[in-house]
Amino acid sequence: MTDCKFANEAQVIDFARCHSGVFDPAERLQVEEIGDGNINFVYRVFADDGNSVIIKQALPYVRIIGEGWPLSQDRIRIEAEALMLEGEYCPDLVPQVYHFDAERCAIIMEDIGALENLRHALVARAELPKLASHLGRFCAETLFHTSDLYLDAHRKKEMVARFINPDLCKITEDLFFWDPYCDHERNNINPELRDEAEGLWHDEPLKLEVARLKQRFLTSAEALLHGDLHSGSVFVDAGATRVIDAEFAFFGPIAFDVGSMIGNLLLDYAGQTELAGEAAERDAYRDWLLDAVREFWNTFAQRFGDLMSSSTADPTLKLPAYRETYLAELLSQSLGFAGTELIRRTVGLAPVLDLEAIEDPRARARAEALALRIGRTLILERDRLNGIDAAIERIRQI
Amino acid sequence: MTDCKFANEAQVIDFARCHSGVFDPAERLQVEEIGDGNINFVYRVFADDGNSVIIKQALPYVRIIGEGWPLSQDRIRIEAEALMLEGEYCPDLVPQVYHFDAERCAIIMEDIGALENLRHALVARAELPKLASHLGRFCAETLFHTSDLYLDAHRKKEMVARFINPDLCKITEDLFFWDPYCDHERNNINPELRDEAEGLWHDEPLKLEVARLKQRFLTSAEALLHGDLHSGSVFVDAGATRVIDAEFAFFGPIAFDVGSMIGNLLLDYAGQTELAGEAAERDAYRDWLLDAVREFWNTFAQRFGDLMSSSTADPTLKLPAYRETYLAELLSQSLGFAGTELIRRTVGLAPVLDLEAIEDPRARARAEALALRIGRTLILERDRLNGIDAAIERIRQI
Repeated sequence: MTDCKFANEAQVIDFARCHSGVFDPAERLQVEEIGDGNINFVYRVFADDGNSVIIKQALPYVRIIGEGWPLSQDRIRIEAEALMLEGEYCPDLVPQVYHFDAERCAIIMEDIGALENLRHALVARAELPKLASHLGRFCAETLFHTSDLYLDAHRKKEMVARFINPDLCKITEDLFFWDPYCDHERNNINPELRDEAEGLWHDEPLKLEVARLKQRFLTSAEALLHGDLHSGSVFVDAGATRVIDAEFAFFGPIAFDVGSMIGNLLLDYAGQTELAGEAAERDAYRDWLLDAVREFWNTFAQRFGDLMSSSTADPTLKLPAYRETYLAELLSQSLGFAGTELIRRTVGLAPVLDLEAIEDPRARARAEALALRIGRTLILERDRLNGIDAAIERIRQI
Repeated sequence: MTDCKFANEAQVIDFARCHSGVFDPAERLQVEEIGDGNINFVYRVFADDGNSVIIKQALPYVRIIGEGWPLSQDRIRIEAEALMLEGEYCPDLVPQVYHFDAERCAIIMEDIGALENLRHALVARAELPKLASHLGRFCAETLFHTSDLYLDAHRKKEMVARFINPDLCKITEDLFFWDPYCDHERNNINPELRDEAEGLWHDEPLKLEVARLKQRFLTSAEALLHGDLHSGSVFVDAGATRVIDAEFAFFGPIAFDVGSMIGNLLLDYAGQTELAGEAAERDAYRDWLLDAVREFWNTFAQRFGDLMSSSTADPTLKLPAYRETYLAELLSQSLGFAGTELIRRTVGLAPVLDLEAIEDPRARARAEALALRIGRTLILERDRLNGIDAAIERIRQI
């Protein structure tokens, strides 16, 4: 599989023509490499009439580093299978998969290029009235239907084995739960934030709770997660939402997906204190972001709870009291994981535009410090925040 | 693999002679079938000079039912691999594996027939001064060394996939967490205990907590469990202990193994209220059983905690405060799982001699009712019982 890389544009075009089922045999096609991620190659193949497809290819190493950082190509099989499973339950919220090719380590999928990356949209304060309910439904449908609540015992365990994903999990284990809490060479720390960042390394109560969340990430095989559900994995316009990049998929704690998304909305909430533009406009957007967190959670919890009532196969897990306890614990854990996302995006290896776009380092440090304070509060107080409204009120006070 | 069954005694003897490395080529050997379990065939092959081995063979169905209850033969590979892993960390506490044969679906192992089954020994009130510390060390060593605390991220996940064990897990999921809490045809209920048993079916607070424990059993891939650590899986004499029958091994919650063992000691504690013999002798043995629970837990927690301090690879999981929190949560969960074992052994499919040996149904019902009360208390109060001494004091009050 190591020589699966396309040798030239003609090979990419041939591959798309043969396997996508989208193009006429005689149609003139063009290709462009559009990958802006760090890991894979992404091509867009398009015809004069506007027809197009995306080809995502995984090589046995990290794209921006090269062969010095090897990475299992099994990730592209996992991504293809996860994307198809997500498509079963949310066909309107993921790109359609036309073809997965194990030899080429490549997926041909629907081109969603007309939509905008959610992170850019949030930084630009785009109006996204459908976003929160779409993402809430995405999480509820994909996570419920791959959990023990829905799957029979054999199918669940067969799937756990099929989605074992150590290379990609290791990245999360390190970047979320290790780097920010020590003086790690991978960290990116704004010099103006140095004191606050160093404070994390000696914050024993925080490190204890992060260890408990890490233990949960390592051991809780609750459902097939997206595994990397940040703003950069979502494309949007005012009416549509698509979730991509499922290569981190594995059986993990449901709250990790939910919390990652909440953390990303809150990163923009912190960034908007200092991003360019009118204060009133930024304040209004920050209010909207908190409303989006609330609507995201409420949509998720309502739909997940409904599915627990209607579609849980196992009668012993179908008690109404269990549903309430389960959702309350999910919220608490989700707030904790949201906190780890806030912190690792502020001082870790992978910064986000929501903070990076603040040009003045001092202003940026103020927004970053807010992100750290929100993150720390959510992690330490997650078990005491009684419901999403209480959590949002607490965030507003920080 | 379906025709792997030995056709005659000569085949069993040939197999032992070829693969065990224990017998001289010319030695005269005999064989006896000694399986007293429900699932597998077990042969003892022995020479005139006393040399002997055990052969355990798994057919693709449950032995006492026949082909009408199919069961994956992969269980014997899992048992062999788990037994060899346990042997790496506790060579004195498991039988040595001489050979595993995938084609025959058979393990040749050390004959531990000189020892007595622990359940019989407990019913007979045997003195077992080493038992609790041996079993505590067994759990600490095998569970720590197969957890994320010790294994690197890749190895752990590769092992999780290798020990996926759906057929055997399904048995536990049903027998522990389903049958006793409804009017299931598999249940065995003493008519004299009928009211108490039916009470379980409508005990909503109990069913809620059992659902939470079941969720943990289904999703927490913490370490490679023995998975069936009851008194019948342990052989003993005054100085030696051997743990056998690892075919239920899978990556599950550490507290399930620990709790199963505690539950089995407490089943005998309940049974000894009504078993034959002098009251003073039975009372003294009941005191010893509670001491054994305490020593088992303390040995386990001390050794597991020491290993956490000395051998945790991941610095983020090495905080002293994390160790304390981790062990406190383990105790609470272990008490909960112990409770489910007490209940399912009293009213479910697989009764235990500790209660069954009480001949008078009314006397038996009194002991069974005590087992149910202890089980229920441990499940409902597990988070409030602050340490093993408090738990034992609470059990004594019931």
